[in-house]
Amino acid sequence: MAEQKKAENMLWGGRFTGGLDPLMVAYNESIYFDRHLYAQDIAGSIAWARANQKAGILTPEEFAAIESGFEKVKEEWVSGTFKIIPGVDEDIHTANERRLGEIIGKDIGGKLHTGRSRNEQVATDMRLWLRDELRTIEGHMVDFLKVTAARAEKEIDHIMPGYTHLQRAQPIRWSHWMLSYGTAFAADLERLREVISRVNQSPLGAGALAGNCFGLDRQAMAEELGFEGLIWNSMAAVSSRDFVVEAMQWGSTLMMHMSRWAEDLIVYSTGEFAYVRLADAYSTGSSLMPQKKNPDSLELLRGKSGRAFGHMAGLMMTVKGLPSTYNKDLQESLEPMLDHVKTVSDSIQIATGVLSTLAINPEKMRASLDPFMLATDLADYLVKKGVPFRETHHISGQCVAHSEKTGTPMNEMSHADFQAIDARFDADVLQCFDYEVSVEQHSAQGGTARKSVLEQVEVLKKMLV
Amino acid sequence: MAEQKKAENMLWGGRFTGGLDPLMVAYNESIYFDRHLYAQDIAGSIAWARANQKAGILTPEEFAAIESGFEKVKEEWVSGTFKIIPGVDEDIHTANERRLGEIIGKDIGGKLHTGRSRNEQVATDMRLWLRDELRTIEGHMVDFLKVTAARAEKEIDHIMPGYTHLQRAQPIRWSHWMLSYGTAFAADLERLREVISRVNQSPLGAGALAGNCFGLDRQAMAEELGFEGLIWNSMAAVSSRDFVVEAMQWGSTLMMHMSRWAEDLIVYSTGEFAYVRLADAYSTGSSLMPQKKNPDSLELLRGKSGRAFGHMAGLMMTVKGLPSTYNKDLQESLEPMLDHVKTVSDSIQIATGVLSTLAINPEKMRASLDPFMLATDLADYLVKKGVPFRETHHISGQCVAHSEKTGTPMNEMSHADFQAIDARFDADVLQCFDYEVSVEQHSAQGGTARKSVLEQVEVLKKMLV
Amino acid sequence: MAEQKKAENMLWGGRFTGGLDPLMVAYNESIYFDRHLYAQDIAGSIAWARANQKAGILTPEEFAAIESGFEKVKEEWVSGTFKIIPGVDEDIHTANERRLGEIIGKDIGGKLHTGRSRNEQVATDMRLWLRDELRTIEGHMVDFLKVTAARAEKEIDHIMPGYTHLQRAQPIRWSHWMLSYGTAFAADLERLREVISRVNQSPLGAGALAGNCFGLDRQAMAEELGFEGLIWNSMAAVSSRDFVVEAMQWGSTLMMHMSRWAEDLIVYSTGEFAYVRLADAYSTGSSLMPQKKNPDSLELLRGKSGRAFGHMAGLMMTVKGLPSTYNKDLQESLEPMLDHVKTVSDSIQIATGVLSTLAINPEKMRASLDPFMLATDLADYLVKKGVPFRETHHISGQCVAHSEKTGTPMNEMSHADFQAIDARFDADVLQCFDYEVSVEQHSAQGGTARKSVLEQVEVLKKMLV
Amino acid sequence: MAEQKKAENMLWGGRFTGGLDPLMVAYNESIYFDRHLYAQDIAGSIAWARANQKAGILTPEEFAAIESGFEKVKEEWVSGTFKIIPGVDEDIHTANERRLGEIIGKDIGGKLHTGRSRNEQVATDMRLWLRDELRTIEGHMVDFLKVTAARAEKEIDHIMPGYTHLQRAQPIRWSHWMLSYGTAFAADLERLREVISRVNQSPLGAGALAGNCFGLDRQAMAEELGFEGLIWNSMAAVSSRDFVVEAMQWGSTLMMHMSRWAEDLIVYSTGEFAYVRLADAYSTGSSLMPQKKNPDSLELLRGKSGRAFGHMAGLMMTVKGLPSTYNKDLQESLEPMLDHVKTVSDSIQIATGVLSTLAINPEKMRASLDPFMLATDLADYLVKKGVPFRETHHISGQCVAHSEKTGTPMNEMSHADFQAIDARFDADVLQCFDYEVSVEQHSAQGGTARKSVLEQVEVLKKMLV
Repeated sequence: MAEQKKAENMLWGGRFTGGLDPLMVAYNESIYFDRHLYAQDIAGSIAWARANQKAGILTPEEFAAIESGFEKVKEEWVSGTFKIIPGVDEDIHTANERRLGEIIGKDIGGKLHTGRSRNEQVATDMRLWLRDELRTIEGHMVDFLKVTAARAEKEIDHIMPGYTHLQRAQPIRWSHWMLSYGTAFAADLERLREVISRVNQSPLGAGALAGNCFGLDRQAMAEELGFEGLIWNSMAAVSSRDFVVEAMQWGSTLMMHMSRWAEDLIVYSTGEFAYVRLADAYSTGSSLMPQKKNPDSLELLRGKSGRAFGHMAGLMMTVKGLPSTYNKDLQESLEPMLDHVKTVSDSIQIATGVLSTLAINPEKMRASLDPFMLATDLADYLVKKGVPFRETHHISGQCVAHSEKTGTPMNEMSHADFQAIDARFDADVLQCFDYEVSVEQHSAQGGTARKSVLEQVEVLKKMLV
Repeated sequence: MAEQKKAENMLWGGRFTGGLDPLMVAYNESIYFDRHLYAQDIAGSIAWARANQKAGILTPEEFAAIESGFEKVKEEWVSGTFKIIPGVDEDIHTANERRLGEIIGKDIGGKLHTGRSRNEQVATDMRLWLRDELRTIEGHMVDFLKVTAARAEKEIDHIMPGYTHLQRAQPIRWSHWMLSYGTAFAADLERLREVISRVNQSPLGAGALAGNCFGLDRQAMAEELGFEGLIWNSMAAVSSRDFVVEAMQWGSTLMMHMSRWAEDLIVYSTGEFAYVRLADAYSTGSSLMPQKKNPDSLELLRGKSGRAFGHMAGLMMTVKGLPSTYNKDLQESLEPMLDHVKTVSDSIQIATGVLSTLAINPEKMRASLDPFMLATDLADYLVKKGVPFRETHHISGQCVAHSEKTGTPMNEMSHADFQAIDARFDADVLQCFDYEVSVEQHSAQGGTARKSVLEQVEVLKKMLV
Repeated sequence: MAEQKKAENMLWGGRFTGGLDPLMVAYNESIYFDRHLYAQDIAGSIAWARANQKAGILTPEEFAAIESGFEKVKEEWVSGTFKIIPGVDEDIHTANERRLGEIIGKDIGGKLHTGRSRNEQVATDMRLWLRDELRTIEGHMVDFLKVTAARAEKEIDHIMPGYTHLQRAQPIRWSHWMLSYGTAFAADLERLREVISRVNQSPLGAGALAGNCFGLDRQAMAEELGFEGLIWNSMAAVSSRDFVVEAMQWGSTLMMHMSRWAEDLIVYSTGEFAYVRLADAYSTGSSLMPQKKNPDSLELLRGKSGRAFGHMAGLMMTVKGLPSTYNKDLQESLEPMLDHVKTVSDSIQIATGVLSTLAINPEKMRASLDPFMLATDLADYLVKKGVPFRETHHISGQCVAHSEKTGTPMNEMSHADFQAIDARFDADVLQCFDYEVSVEQHSAQGGTARKSVLEQVEVLKKMLV
Repeated sequence: MAEQKKAENMLWGGRFTGGLDPLMVAYNESIYFDRHLYAQDIAGSIAWARANQKAGILTPEEFAAIESGFEKVKEEWVSGTFKIIPGVDEDIHTANERRLGEIIGKDIGGKLHTGRSRNEQVATDMRLWLRDELRTIEGHMVDFLKVTAARAEKEIDHIMPGYTHLQRAQPIRWSHWMLSYGTAFAADLERLREVISRVNQSPLGAGALAGNCFGLDRQAMAEELGFEGLIWNSMAAVSSRDFVVEAMQWGSTLMMHMSRWAEDLIVYSTGEFAYVRLADAYSTGSSLMPQKKNPDSLELLRGKSGRAFGHMAGLMMTVKGLPSTYNKDLQESLEPMLDHVKTVSDSIQIATGVLSTLAINPEKMRASLDPFMLATDLADYLVKKGVPFRETHHISGQCVAHSEKTGTPMNEMSHADFQAIDARFDADVLQCFDYEVSVEQHSAQGGTARKSVLEQVEVLKKMLV
């Protein structure tokens, strides 16, 4: 036999001479990452055994032995004493069952897997794990948004330039900036809750692909494990890593938002803008330049948006074009899932830390306001006097040009200057040049006026229960 | 002035000598694709004008002129007589307003844009358009799933090999195969409905970024346009193309499912499998090989999964790291959105056509069933006699080996043959080798038994209302 | 027949009642985009006919008729008089051959396709087209880099802050900044030349998949068409869209560089930085805010990096997991190729226009220099006195702290101030605070010193021949 | 100070109370993955120290101490005795320098980093590491292609169906199939060699961004480290992770090829095709179904194409839109690089193992040949009698239809049958139906004829030196 193997392997100059390719063993095994799912694997197995007992496959004594055996296995994982046997424990399912057999004997242990397939088992474990992690992430999101809401409420007085195209556009409240991201992240939170529901569906009882032939009660197993429903086709149940894909689509959207939030704060942290200053805990220095204080936390947040996207893009390619049901390709969903969830979870917490400790410089914000940013208010002034907007926009543009040409800041132009441009300017035109007035005038819902901003805070808070 | 421009442009050997770079004009303008949104742009403008009238910015007469003027503009688009002026009508908003001004005069036309920004306008148009298209797609999905459910119900008798790893695994019903995809697509349908709700939120009244300063009633405008709610922060409203990203994530997931569905059917269409035959309407011949009949429709479905993914991946990269609010980069969301929606919408309809007209060959399906596929049933037979599964799995493996070694198909092995392997085999072991019995035994929910399959049909149908 | 078709289509409630699904016709046909390859298709067909004549399949008279017939077809395309027959001319190959037959008669025209397959034909057309376009792009790259080199040489005197982490780090020359991108783009140019060689390999003579059975001279055809070599396996020749993938990987890398170049210039265009000002030709205004001047060209360059990436990502997913040789999925390579090439080609030209006309503000650059940026020079000063760097880094940090604490700019600290911190500071320490000296001291190759910058210009110019 | 920190961190309800966020420390540090680059980091530091000695910054004795100190540090890494100090050794550079200082004293150790930045150091380490790994991969590619060439040469006699659209198309040689992938992988090999050259360029001497101010000899350092050239701009040198991107583009293209190779072999391994059988070393069984033998190795190869793509897509998104020079985002290039290289390297070796040990079943291949596959040969038969191809294609199609209608295999149709269809069929038409003749007739270069196949083998072998 060994000889035959040897011959087989050496036909074309293979690397190895035994029947086994050690690299293939390593390429195939998943124990070094799927062991993170030990608790879910054990919970799923206990639910499985309980259903088998109800169906008469196991006696109550056998079930009790399995349940208490698994408690011991779990303790070993928790305490770090579980010993993985290299080359034998190829995955968490094999490892747990092997150890169970050692503890309670193979006669009973060997009955556990009756009618079950690793295909349904891994899908169950992954869904349980992901559901739990996403719920934790939901909590981190709520924390992050609470800080956002609290700061927005408290720091509502500070006015800063609002940008479009990264050009100063109109004055806004600093709180309005924070809430602009609060709004995007709140939509993420809403969507997360939907994703969790779709993740939290039970594949258990799907078998290898054709279902279960011992009449197990899938609903009961699902309930025991906290699932919200069943995957209603056994082939679909083992075919799918859609729950990972959707969670990653969610995570990469969240990180895309994070990348924009971080980009803004990085720009606002520059010496040239200087609106905000990161706490030391979230900055680092330079190995060469003694004066540097770099916003590393924000850059990592921004950079990791690529990493999160890569997980999702990679998995979608892996799944693309696969034939029905389980193919080993799907194993490639597990490591990216683990890293994706960690990346997203850590990032939200880091962002919360950054925002919680961020110092702002309202003087710098205010100093950067420029009368040109009120050119729209100037146009609106004439609109209120009945001039069509397209005309007022043109007139206001002439005022801007006059200011640029003469070097007189627009808010220092005289009534006569304005009248020379258009006779409809009255003396009260000079009252346009007040940033506070400007933000207060944007009083429709969702705007920069104090009451509009506070209304946004309330809308946000309602989601954070 | 022209001279100065010329000098400016020629400093470093520029390509052009006038003040204008014609390539830049083309690079920048969007009219040749955003004109698809003409109806939404007009509807949005009418809602805008109505709100301005209510706020006292427009008189009732002015509003009436604007409304009727826009009706005429719309008629021109519908009848194909709208004339785009190259170099002037850079986008649909400009084009519609320019034409309105020609029809009703600039005095009134010039008041339309009061307090409005193209930033909020384009976001509004895109959301309205996408919402309408996604609802159409929802209808296509329902049609596709109806065909799936109808065939599954009617063709429930046919048994075929079920595959894992593309290796024959266990017998299943042909209907079970169809429903496995029905299950995945039904989850897509559920998710689509959530996506539509998130798309269907109003940005109107957000201004360029700071909101509206004429106290417009955003709720009323939203209601007129059929939006389900407001984007609660003006900066978020103009910053976001999340609604496109989410719709594309949905679409690329759907197409990922489609790629697998197509892959299965392509394999089943090969001469070697020959389970299904595409209607001529969905096949094509070869320019060189007279005998060929190729499943082009399925290959395009599979191939376009890449295209749909590319739209999504590209847009996410475009958005990544952008600073707050509107940046021109966001214009890059429009063309991909148009092509994505068309790709997805066409593909679902093509898939419906393929499935509606697909001929199946139940004899070929049955002929491909192999007694080895009942090895699990053989193991289960012993389980029911009390032998632990891990042992039965091993014994069944020995039977497989015996069959392979002796060349006797497993279903033709004698009772004695089985007993020689394990004494616990009784004479009724031979009854294991019935594919019909096997599929019926998988009677837990979601399995291959007739009642389980029919239950799946019912679950599916409930979603298609 | 029609009846049978009808029945076939209506089995499950299909959308259409004839034998043909009009949507499928549109879904399948490529003429509306592959017509862009008309010239390549004709050149390939003439080369094909010539080889067939040499092989005795065509007479010299037949070949002459084909060649002159194709000249007429080509003229029709050039003059815009070619009439595509909807539903008949499904692709450019069919259209050209149909028209040829009309011009020279079907007896001769019908001989053209002897032993040829559309599989090899489309691969040939695409490679020829792409090669030609990439050579044009190579020219655009050279133009862009020439402007870079010319400005870098001429504007070498201007000193600005160099940034790491977007924080002011050390003084650099403005030319050094331009050359940093010049270096990246030059590597792109080098790589482009390799890509072109790999694109420019002939698949002609590969047949549908098995090669040519009339003994055609593939080398001669390749030479006539300007190919540099053959694809050495007929199946590989028709299987591959690697040449498109590689060109898109190149293009998306280029655009990734472009996105960074644009990002820098967008930041430098802000009111807060104000180092550069775009020519009006590359900026646009706001529909709402009269004072705005937005860097739309740069934002589109940055945004289109996503689009270019999306093409590549999408095509790679399309190709992933396809079985051997031609599958219709590969048709999905053509439209993205056309759009990708246009995107990249336009973008380089726009970037050239932007750089050619960009106004700089050296005063603003200089004003933004900050003595803290010389903290490293201060540390180096002590290094030159024999103090270990790790210690000097620390001492320099103390000087920074002293400056921050006392509010004395570091360049205004007295010799005594420095000595109080470390006795090894001599009076000449004050000479450290000269930005010109600092950039000149970085005189190793590739640094900011004048001679180092000029050497970079020379290295760059050598590539632009 | 601690108090102030505390206050700072608790402003908005931060998670932690000290000045340090432990999660941020972990989020930021890279030591747990960049330690893989210890040898490159040490080699780079020695080259750096040598250049500093030549420039007079270090004495010969100091250099000797540093060099021998680093030898000891390296030994500790090799022997696994290097102790990373958590929270102190944030990256490999810090760790190595800290340990060096402990061994040779801080007075000398503290001089090592003179004028150097971690920015240039990490770029140098990564390029060295990647260059070495890619060279190893080059060797794996050569091994893989050698097996391909050897099998292609030896197994040239076996004829199998060639497929287009996964439909049987024309007969080919099994060797021709192997060489079709050999051709694609050989192009990968060619490209890899170009990638290595572009990776192998030295950034050392670039400083943090502005270059080196101690006049170090960059050429000499580059030569010592085996670099082929310099990055000619200090900012470009620290800005770029293009070398990682390009290597990943290469790797994901290779894996895309691998996914197709695996897909073919998975299909050929099905019970329905049964052309090949994987060695046990590369297959696995089922936990539920005793009869299963699954091509796990091939599925992992196919699935990991997504993983490799995800690395690339993710990094490109990370880099997109970053401002100049080093940003911490770039740290996100390191882990993906490590995993990408391992994935690609392992996969090539697994593929080599699979191919080396693959059993083929030539009888099954031959049995699957179908006379319809010679329909093109039948058309060509008439071409050689002077009938225009378009007509012969039609006539051959009629023969196919006759065969299908009458149920007579085409190769069993009589001369009279053929003449009834077209009078130009002579008696020798029956000789068309020989698969061996068919493959031999495709004798143009790159075709299926024996000599064409052997020529391909020679072309391939020439690359493997």
